[in-house]
Amino acid sequence: MRKAIATVSVGGTLDRKLEAISAARFDGIELFDADLVSSPLSPAEMVARCADLGLAIDLFQPIRDVEGTPPDQFDAVLHRVRAKFEVMGLLGVDRALVCSSVRPDAVEDRDLMAEQLAAVAGVAAEAGIRVGYEALAWGRTTSRFAEAWDVVRRVDHPHLGVVVDTFHMLARGDGPEALADVPGDRITFLQIADAPRLGMHILDWSRHFRCFPGQGNLDVAPLVADVLRRGYRGPLSLEVFSDVVREADPRTTALDAMRSLLHLEEELRGWWDAPEHAGERPRIDLFDPPAAPTRVDPAWVEISTGGPGPARELEDLLGALGFTGAGQGRWHNGAATVLPDDSPTDRPAAVTALGVAVAEPTDVTTRAEAMLWPRVRGGRPGLDSPSGLSVYLEPSATLAPGPGDWLGIDHVGASVDPNLLPAEQSFFRTVLGMRAGDMTEFIQPNGRMRSRPVTPAEGDLRVILSVDDGTRPDEARRGLNQVAFAVPDVVAVVRRVRAAGLELMPVPDNYYVDLAARFDLPEAQLELLREHGVLYDRGPQGELLHVYTPVLGNGFYLEMLQRIDGYRGYGAPNTQIRLAAHSRQRFLPRDRPQGRPVQAR
Amino acid sequence: MRKAIATVSVGGTLDRKLEAISAARFDGIELFDADLVSSPLSPAEMVARCADLGLAIDLFQPIRDVEGTPPDQFDAVLHRVRAKFEVMGLLGVDRALVCSSVRPDAVEDRDLMAEQLAAVAGVAAEAGIRVGYEALAWGRTTSRFAEAWDVVRRVDHPHLGVVVDTFHMLARGDGPEALADVPGDRITFLQIADAPRLGMHILDWSRHFRCFPGQGNLDVAPLVADVLRRGYRGPLSLEVFSDVVREADPRTTALDAMRSLLHLEEELRGWWDAPEHAGERPRIDLFDPPAAPTRVDPAWVEISTGGPGPARELEDLLGALGFTGAGQGRWHNGAATVLPDDSPTDRPAAVTALGVAVAEPTDVTTRAEAMLWPRVRGGRPGLDSPSGLSVYLEPSATLAPGPGDWLGIDHVGASVDPNLLPAEQSFFRTVLGMRAGDMTEFIQPNGRMRSRPVTPAEGDLRVILSVDDGTRPDEARRGLNQVAFAVPDVVAVVRRVRAAGLELMPVPDNYYVDLAARFDLPEAQLELLREHGVLYDRGPQGELLHVYTPVLGNGFYLEMLQRIDGYRGYGAPNTQIRLAAHSRQRFLPRDRPQGRPVQAR
Repeated sequence: MRKAIATVSVGGTLDRKLEAISAARFDGIELFDADLVSSPLSPAEMVARCADLGLAIDLFQPIRDVEGTPPDQFDAVLHRVRAKFEVMGLLGVDRALVCSSVRPDAVEDRDLMAEQLAAVAGVAAEAGIRVGYEALAWGRTTSRFAEAWDVVRRVDHPHLGVVVDTFHMLARGDGPEALADVPGDRITFLQIADAPRLGMHILDWSRHFRCFPGQGNLDVAPLVADVLRRGYRGPLSLEVFSDVVREADPRTTALDAMRSLLHLEEELRGWWDAPEHAGERPRIDLFDPPAAPTRVDPAWVEISTGGPGPARELEDLLGALGFTGAGQGRWHNGAATVLPDDSPTDRPAAVTALGVAVAEPTDVTTRAEAMLWPRVRGGRPGLDSPSGLSVYLEPSATLAPGPGDWLGIDHVGASVDPNLLPAEQSFFRTVLGMRAGDMTEFIQPNGRMRSRPVTPAEGDLRVILSVDDGTRPDEARRGLNQVAFAVPDVVAVVRRVRAAGLELMPVPDNYYVDLAARFDLPEAQLELLREHGVLYDRGPQGELLHVYTPVLGNGFYLEMLQRIDGYRGYGAPNTQIRLAAHSRQRFLPRDRPQGRPVQAR
Repeated sequence: MRKAIATVSVGGTLDRKLEAISAARFDGIELFDADLVSSPLSPAEMVARCADLGLAIDLFQPIRDVEGTPPDQFDAVLHRVRAKFEVMGLLGVDRALVCSSVRPDAVEDRDLMAEQLAAVAGVAAEAGIRVGYEALAWGRTTSRFAEAWDVVRRVDHPHLGVVVDTFHMLARGDGPEALADVPGDRITFLQIADAPRLGMHILDWSRHFRCFPGQGNLDVAPLVADVLRRGYRGPLSLEVFSDVVREADPRTTALDAMRSLLHLEEELRGWWDAPEHAGERPRIDLFDPPAAPTRVDPAWVEISTGGPGPARELEDLLGALGFTGAGQGRWHNGAATVLPDDSPTDRPAAVTALGVAVAEPTDVTTRAEAMLWPRVRGGRPGLDSPSGLSVYLEPSATLAPGPGDWLGIDHVGASVDPNLLPAEQSFFRTVLGMRAGDMTEFIQPNGRMRSRPVTPAEGDLRVILSVDDGTRPDEARRGLNQVAFAVPDVVAVVRRVRAAGLELMPVPDNYYVDLAARFDLPEAQLELLREHGVLYDRGPQGELLHVYTPVLGNGFYLEMLQRIDGYRGYGAPNTQIRLAAHSRQRFLPRDRPQGRPVQAR
């Protein structure tokens, strides 16, 4: 299907917006009036520029505050509308969006509104323009789709239809049922946006937190499916404003936007493939890449050990943890695999890549390329995520546990730029079919951290994406920053590590006093935890025991966790203990070696 | 009065929090349980540390989820409460805060709640502790002050009182009238916070947007006055959580917090000095600095011209604008004064200081010192604002207009770090008695800009504080970045500048097409505006004509504006035109000289 995006949905000056939109292979744009007004491009230059870039101008928007105007002021409205239609004529655009009035003095007289919209439709007919009326969710005269459709039906003019905007409708609780008696040819335009469910006023929600479909919680696909089933054949057009799209690089945003539409088309295909919608599919082309893998598992993490000196230290740590080398540069402890990369470097140690096991790696890379994701340079089949994570694909069949009793990689964590979080989620969603869970917020000593898990429908890969808000740049450790291993016995791990003369992250004694206050732990168990510096949590199901290393290398850390009786979750109540301990370690004066991963022996 | 602050109200690890709180001269702290739990300081070490720093521990908080607990689980609650009281014993703290339960399964049975709180009060009595019960605004069993007081009255135990928290009360619309039948000795503790009025769920509002008193819109002083009138003599204690305090430097936050309490005491003094409250003032010491100036006017701006070469260019521009030198390095155009500083520097030109005229500069500096504001180094009486603006004070009597017809400095703009905005407002409020107006939000090509004017009750100084959200670091131009001059005839200014071969900021032709659509301007007037590149706005009162220079030096710009018939405001509808034009200028390829301030002649 044709794909468009509103110029207001990407950042930058109009010139840069257009370049980014074209580079992401969109077919057209919705031209946002304010973008044109503040641009030095004349309408004729704008037409030429769009033609050069292969972009159609599918819609001119918005024309505001039309209907319900006090009658003595309506001449000024018609004057304004005529002037905008004239600009549209110069631009060669034949569709305009009128959004419902937000004038404080707008009159909620539906006859008057119909009369005034009829007048605008008349002027539009002369100019060869079709006008779509949109119910802004916070409009004064009209805030629900049904109200907009009611006025449009009263006017009953071929040059006046309704706009379906998935955000405005779904935000107010209006789904496909609201379209019940709307014929497809009365839908002038389809605008698509998603949003996370947030408890705030709808106007602020809309202005700051919309996102591309699939990145929020609104049920976008069924509404779009219904619009298409009714015969709408205009473009799938994205209209998203958010703090993220304003601040992010326009090229990143435009690509993210395009991928969200490709993925939406795939979802639509799935919708119509389902038995309950069989036969409803209209005759339209839909994006058809190889399917996402059904099962996704972690295979390994690659750790750059930071050159020969530090490499030795990291190898000591891995040895103390029970990893043994198994040739081909792979270290194993049971089902946990680490690829140490000791090539000489002047950078500190870091987690540099994630290996993911799928049945057919080639299908995944083909799929990713169709979605415009860049491949990792070099021979191995791998992909670079928007925030720069390198994800390599391995055939599941090659996974084989080594000596040792660890159960595998439980999860990995990555810290990403706040403006890249939606794109990062899209990467895991569109490439690997993984879904983002709920966002959890933590207070850390120097700001906040928000994190959300991304998990596949089937398989054990869990990626925790986190965002540090307000952390000072010198503390920002972007990239893979956590590797958590599932182990059968955390206390045994601590004993091994200590026997090797190394230390894990210290846990304050106050923590155990609090633990005793919160849980009725047997004294012996509490003492065992305290003695070994083990953190504890109890969920609705099961218990968690876990330990962390101090911060290593460029700021990453390892976690060893023991899930008991089906504990889910990640020990969130203990996160602030870790954040404080790791923060103290960073602020430690150099002459206090406490908390260093590797002690002199 | 004694002053305290909750450890949760400043960022950093507990050690750094305590240092910052002590350095800001607080008398005590509310110890936040989670801060203690994640700290390696044992209770004994904590006591010693606080003693070293001259800090009392006035309150232990919070103890959560006590009342309304399903009876079969109440033993676990008492176990937890006893454990916390034991820690309090080790800390030597005798007041604890219990906040209303947020357990999903809490039972709203007021007899049960009273019974359970009575049990806690009994345990507290044994431990020599007084418990204050606080109505969290989002509590499950209790969310209003009256509900908390009702339970406390039922229990009627000397070791159980209520907590007055100005945020929780005022956020729910409860002012002093809610205290009607509460004796002062039943108020266990007073927590003070302010907040801007925001349309969002109360929990998110509370967690992210509280601020220190005077920085928000809640009517804090009358409620505090009433608590004191009733005989409460505990500390004035701040409990503020917000994104800003979490992210900002703890020393900045603690000083900001202390100043807000000093200013609150001054407000309380004013409250009781008013005839309608005569005789109500309790016997308490209140901060008593020299009064803020009654009238505050702009005197001059200092512009570092960036060394001999660029200095010449800036002098050319000032000359073209009609400024003439008048000895002592001052340039005048009527009542507008600029101090060019041409000392050699390798930095680009910049607006380096603001001169402010007040009747008695010495009173202001004495006042500022009492409020712990740092003085500018060197001989002149001046102050450094938190974001680094240098503000010098001049006696009003010395202001004298020079040759020329400009009306003066209309306003100045400063771009500040988002985390310093509250402190910056406090600077102008506490030193000069200026008040912040409403925040306006603008979309700029690479993010958002929020700005709010700060103005005195009397006098013409207007400072527009703005925050760039999401602007990339290389574009952040912090500090004084705008000087707007009031002129009698903007068109005449443009003619002068053009006659000198210079150019002002270009305005797109599309802007005038839009202007014609929005306003019924006579054709001749529209042409005059277009020909001279003048921006236009019309308010409920009057009209505005204004022009900008391109971006100069380090990123500042000058504005010349003509207010007609009492136009107020700052031409907000045209801000996006300026933002786009200035952004285009920054992105211009070097070989296109268009938009440079100074053209070859």
